Amino acid sequence: MPKEHKLQIIPLGGLGEIGKNMTVIRYDNQMVLVDAGLAFPDEDMLGIDIVIPDYTYLIEHKEMLLGILLTHGHEDHIGALPYLLRDVDVPVFGTRLTLGIIQSKMKENNLSNIQATVVQPRDVIKLGVFRIEFIRVNHSIPDSVSIAIHSPLGTVVVTGDFKLDHTPVSGEILDIHKFSELGDKGVLCLLSDSTNVERAGFTPSESHVGEMIDEAFRNAKDRVILASFASNVYRLQQAITAAVNTNRKVAVVGRSMVNIVGIAEELGYLDIPEGTLIDIDEIIGLPGNQACILTTGSQGEPMSALTRMANHDHRHVAIQPGDTVIISASPIPGNEKSVAKTVDQLFKLGANVIYESAEGMHVSGHASQEEQKLMLSMVRPQYFMPVHGEYRMLIKHAQLAEQLGIPRENIFITENGGVVEFTRHGAALGSKVMAGKVLIDGLGIGDVGNIVLRDRKQLSQDGILIVVMTISRASGAIVSGPDVVTRGFVYVRESETMLDEAKQKVKQTMARCRENRVTEWAVFKNQIRDTLSKHFYEKTRRRPVILPIIQEVE
Amino acid sequence: MPKEHKLQIIPLGGLGEIGKNMTVIRYDNQMVLVDAGLAFPDEDMLGIDIVIPDYTYLIEHKEMLLGILLTHGHEDHIGALPYLLRDVDVPVFGTRLTLGIIQSKMKENNLSNIQATVVQPRDVIKLGVFRIEFIRVNHSIPDSVSIAIHSPLGTVVVTGDFKLDHTPVSGEILDIHKFSELGDKGVLCLLSDSTNVERAGFTPSESHVGEMIDEAFRNAKDRVILASFASNVYRLQQAITAAVNTNRKVAVVGRSMVNIVGIAEELGYLDIPEGTLIDIDEIIGLPGNQACILTTGSQGEPMSALTRMANHDHRHVAIQPGDTVIISASPIPGNEKSVAKTVDQLFKLGANVIYESAEGMHVSGHASQEEQKLMLSMVRPQYFMPVHGEYRMLIKHAQLAEQLGIPRENIFITENGGVVEFTRHGAALGSKVMAGKVLIDGLGIGDVGNIVLRDRKQLSQDGILIVVMTISRASGAIVSGPDVVTRGFVYVRESETMLDEAKQKVKQTMARCRENRVTEWAVFKNQIRDTLSKHFYEKTRRRPVILPIIQEVE
Repeated sequence: MPKEHKLQIIPLGGLGEIGKNMTVIRYDNQMVLVDAGLAFPDEDMLGIDIVIPDYTYLIEHKEMLLGILLTHGHEDHIGALPYLLRDVDVPVFGTRLTLGIIQSKMKENNLSNIQATVVQPRDVIKLGVFRIEFIRVNHSIPDSVSIAIHSPLGTVVVTGDFKLDHTPVSGEILDIHKFSELGDKGVLCLLSDSTNVERAGFTPSESHVGEMIDEAFRNAKDRVILASFASNVYRLQQAITAAVNTNRKVAVVGRSMVNIVGIAEELGYLDIPEGTLIDIDEIIGLPGNQACILTTGSQGEPMSALTRMANHDHRHVAIQPGDTVIISASPIPGNEKSVAKTVDQLFKLGANVIYESAEGMHVSGHASQEEQKLMLSMVRPQYFMPVHGEYRMLIKHAQLAEQLGIPRENIFITENGGVVEFTRHGAALGSKVMAGKVLIDGLGIGDVGNIVLRDRKQLSQDGILIVVMTISRASGAIVSGPDVVTRGFVYVRESETMLDEAKQKVKQTMARCRENRVTEWAVFKNQIRDTLSKHFYEKTRRRPVILPIIQEVE
Repeated sequence: MPKEHKLQIIPLGGLGEIGKNMTVIRYDNQMVLVDAGLAFPDEDMLGIDIVIPDYTYLIEHKEMLLGILLTHGHEDHIGALPYLLRDVDVPVFGTRLTLGIIQSKMKENNLSNIQATVVQPRDVIKLGVFRIEFIRVNHSIPDSVSIAIHSPLGTVVVTGDFKLDHTPVSGEILDIHKFSELGDKGVLCLLSDSTNVERAGFTPSESHVGEMIDEAFRNAKDRVILASFASNVYRLQQAITAAVNTNRKVAVVGRSMVNIVGIAEELGYLDIPEGTLIDIDEIIGLPGNQACILTTGSQGEPMSALTRMANHDHRHVAIQPGDTVIISASPIPGNEKSVAKTVDQLFKLGANVIYESAEGMHVSGHASQEEQKLMLSMVRPQYFMPVHGEYRMLIKHAQLAEQLGIPRENIFITENGGVVEFTRHGAALGSKVMAGKVLIDGLGIGDVGNIVLRDRKQLSQDGILIVVMTISRASGAIVSGPDVVTRGFVYVRESETMLDEAKQKVKQTMARCRENRVTEWAVFKNQIRDTLSKHFYEKTRRRPVILPIIQEVE
């Protein structure tokens, strides 16, 4: 009997979390990858820069990997590529802006010569057994697509991030007709964006923000400084249009903003009248009512241009009373306090700050419930997998699907590494594959794990106390020290008595150890640690890391 | 010419921040204090437990202090009392529940014998030159009052936290008539709660939440576990009523919840039918549809009861499929992610979780814009000081007041320590007094300052690397070491080569120092630090704290 064919959906990231989206579609021994994103670290990942998926599974099966398909150019969908492409060498497919952003990332990472192929919505490509279609959607970055992957066992549709914008700033609306056509022909499984499932109704059109921006520009008597996500090219376009409408020149500050504006203009995604874009030095010389500055920092990121301006620490721009600052973005969960701090600082410098809670200066790029329902109704898949969301969002999205008549047993809520398998006879959860987080800290990829993080956590809470002494190998007597050094624990000057007592306790402990003929250093050290830990907890109710270091001399 | 009399309003906390509310009202050489609150640490205050106001000014003028007046029993209004009362010994005035909570706090802090006097709304007391009235308001804890302080130069009204609840769960509505009477007679200055100034309209009634809770209890087929702020006695009452209505017994878990329920029941603020409240052990034995558990943990606090349940780590309660968990609170800014994590975990355990974004399970205890306007219109003060708010909120509240006709020059937006002075001739900003944050870490009060925090920050990001060696005093040669120890930097096992190279570099540095006849240890250490810092940054792009320790032997 021949082996039964199998189609597998293998999520390596994006389930139970926001970010690091990465999904493998595998048919027998051929597979394609949809997206390769990064995530930003949780608060408890101290010192970590970014997080990428553990893609051991891909490495182990790299001979099966036919290509990487990208839905759009956001970091949570492409940010792991510079790492992944060191390990696998396969063609990459994406729309023009997506690949433009990736090329620039690759240059930064000293990676070139990737095999990149530009595709357009409605393009169809063949990779091995798969026929792949790219389908236009709306999102907060141009050139976003969903991907339909046709296999001998049926069609899988991966929405990527999407919303439905009936009045897009440029480009066309989500390809209702193609999704409907797919639904008509029959879709085996839909993987759909769950990010905004907690929001009822429809996500408003990006154009709505444009009207609000235009009004704010008209009301501004002096300079306008607008912060948004760098990659939201529509938002930048609307700000530039508002600037042109109010006879302002525009300067761009912030590395990622300068980068994206460069790429988007070069590729024709930004329509900027000749002479509008000028250097930041020139803007400073203009009368306020002729000046507009586009900047990064809408999330209150510590090193960003807007945060520097708020802290009066930007090389070029000093906020002045009369400036209008527009924060055209919502705080990403976790950033609320840093954004609030930036707003406060800007107010203190005399700016008129228009921020999120003042309605209408931002709309989401993700589908709300009614759009999610529409996607389900158009595609009417046999099976459904909610993706791109924390666990509660996946649950809510599943509940929506059930309301629309998809049987509960045809809905799979799984986790990263949890495989969904389809055969001619049906679908089921398969055995799990390796998946998880790889932490990037500086140049280190995955070299910071739980022990290092646990140490950082303890260091951050109560600091460290180091006890050093030198011991005579012959006699076991202390010949230098004990010395005590602390960092992040207490002000040494105010704690001399307590630290002197600690030295005495160390000496007593060593004496006791010698009396008891202890010769193991590990035992010495443990006893010192226990004694001091108790001493300092009694005195301070703190638990610093305690590190005894003993050196021996002849 | 006799010296001119002066009335001063001296905010020591609560301006430019949420929390640690503390305001001095001083007339010549007599003063009263309104509230003594704490704040919770910012994310960058690593390891800090709580923050209290720097009340040096009070200590320096303690002979002038006639009493402490409390508006209500929330930590941000009374949490600094156990510290302050070690340093000043003056009578404390508050309503019954407020003082009940304080007595229990004092016991915990081994402080007794405070001079506490219970007051009721509409009571009038005299302290020196001041006549003081307590005025009923609505808030998320019973027995909340505003305070009117009459002085020879006019009346100051301090609202404390307030909202207007036309249908309170128990007690009466905010004393519109008294505020109007005060306004009628003339108020010099109003200090009003700015917390919710970013919200348009009216804050809904607490009773509205009761209806939603009741419905959720009726729909629940199994146990109901409800988390809320422990001090929201109204919410607890409504949950208990819903439990009684659905024939459930109630158990209370979480230290602060047990504490408050005890106090509130004893003082008659909770109406609990005989036999309703039972022990948690007994609840576990009951059928699910007869059980209700009230718990702490609505903010996802790591050690709280609900968080432990979500992590399957609670001594008594194991979440089961079918349990309904109601989180009857909004996340305080900064807690969004930990609350979301708790919700996710509870869903994973199979609970049906009803949380904030599912509407109606929480209302704020603070006035929205329309109530703030009403307060201004009732009191119609000559001068206005927005208080209890971050800077942008104070600005917005000032703008509201201006819209209602208070002249801009009569509105004072100041900061902690910024004095507003009134004389017969008018009002002006006075010179500043000392104010600020005192950080509490374990038993240490103010012994953690910027240097310690900066060290903790650096330790938390990239850890620490310690280089130890013993040197012969006579020859200057290394007789033991250099040894390298790290914490929170890298996995040692995977980094041996890099660490060995570091030891070589230290030896080279020491040799170079000896050649150049360097004898200063500080120079040795600096050179080692610089060399290693460069070495590790090149290898890892990290900047651990580098700590060279040198010991000498004969």
